[in-house]
Amino acid sequence: MEIKVVRQILEWNEDNSKEIKEILKKKGIFMINVMGSPGAGKTSLIVEMIKRLSSNYKVGVIEGDIAGQIDAEKIDALGIPVVQLNTEGACHIEAMSISHILQYFDLDQLDIMLIENIGNLVCPAEFNIGEDIRIAILSIPEGDDKVEKYPLMFATSEALVLNKYDMKEHFDFNDEKVENIAKDMNPKLHVFRVSTRNQMGMEELIGWVEKMVREKSLA
Amino acid sequence: MEIKVVRQILEWNEDNSKEIKEILKKKGIFMINVMGSPGAGKTSLIVEMIKRLSSNYKVGVIEGDIAGQIDAEKIDALGIPVVQLNTEGACHIEAMSISHILQYFDLDQLDIMLIENIGNLVCPAEFNIGEDIRIAILSIPEGDDKVEKYPLMFATSEALVLNKYDMKEHFDFNDEKVENIAKDMNPKLHVFRVSTRNQMGMEELIGWVEKMVREKSLA
Repeated sequence: MEIKVVRQILEWNEDNSKEIKEILKKKGIFMINVMGSPGAGKTSLIVEMIKRLSSNYKVGVIEGDIAGQIDAEKIDALGIPVVQLNTEGACHIEAMSISHILQYFDLDQLDIMLIENIGNLVCPAEFNIGEDIRIAILSIPEGDDKVEKYPLMFATSEALVLNKYDMKEHFDFNDEKVENIAKDMNPKLHVFRVSTRNQMGMEELIGWVEKMVREKSLA
Repeated sequence: MEIKVVRQILEWNEDNSKEIKEILKKKGIFMINVMGSPGAGKTSLIVEMIKRLSSNYKVGVIEGDIAGQIDAEKIDALGIPVVQLNTEGACHIEAMSISHILQYFDLDQLDIMLIENIGNLVCPAEFNIGEDIRIAILSIPEGDDKVEKYPLMFATSEALVLNKYDMKEHFDFNDEKVENIAKDMNPKLHVFRVSTRNQMGMEELIGWVEKMVREKSLA
């Protein structure tokens, strides 16, 4: 007899991801998976996005971390519904975690769900979690070789945010090269030069996000 | 606001385990979680158990391994329904894996489900997977300090199989000490001295397992 082989986790992550997409579609919620290295500025970007998006949309946040809830407290301080997901060692968020966590939100009161993934350039990219778009953050101090070194994250994202762009003069970071390499592997990628510190590029990014949200709601 | 913190995996492993117990109760299936070190003789014990149990019961097997399907092939050769679960690095089987895998069996055609957990003395013990009983295997060559070193597995099992007992004369293994320490932490533990090679102790073990199965079916 042929033996059925089941792969723990990865095999049904896709099923879970599809279920989440259906729930979110029904509830009219747009989900954004924010990924990047530790220290790239994921939480700061999410905070700035909330400040701008929340005038037009009801926003919720799922904060992924290996442990602790420091980032969730920053979001909570904005009066935004937030649930902290601790992966306890795992380097990524799984779709089944998102399925499980959605129950803690009033989905009828949400338009946009922002998810801060675990600070890591590898594993998070392997797991679809029901998101509509992925935003990959690469900060200038991390270096301009990261897109080549960790292609999956950048190849599967809708947007690349080059964060801490105000620091560019202090680093040897060729942003044209990064943009070209990233768009070669992912022609649909939108690249934004951003500084969450001085708000540079935020308006352009938010304009694009709101356009994506509108397009989904019309689809 | 108080922030809800969700722990990925561990938090809902218990919920999954309870769901499995309900399904198995409804279907009249007795589930045995077989745990022990790599090389302790888990697969050999399962093969011998199948040979003896299958005259009275319809047996199925879930074979857990980090990778590969060598052990599942041994079970398949006996004409017993078997599904291979590959954890791809994880040191334990999770309840949600078992939930997922049950669909590959015809549960109306099963009386006993044997699960071979991952070869590891630590993590498998932390995860209930819907089992009725746990059988921990400790083989004589592993040494008589393992119960003290890895107490959780032995404290949470219904049976301890001291396997490869035919090799006892070649090793400095104080089985009385092991039995006393194990029963001190777990007074309900049943200890069996077994050799799957020469069949020593198998009849006693199977007699006890069949008694446990009968007791559940009468409950």
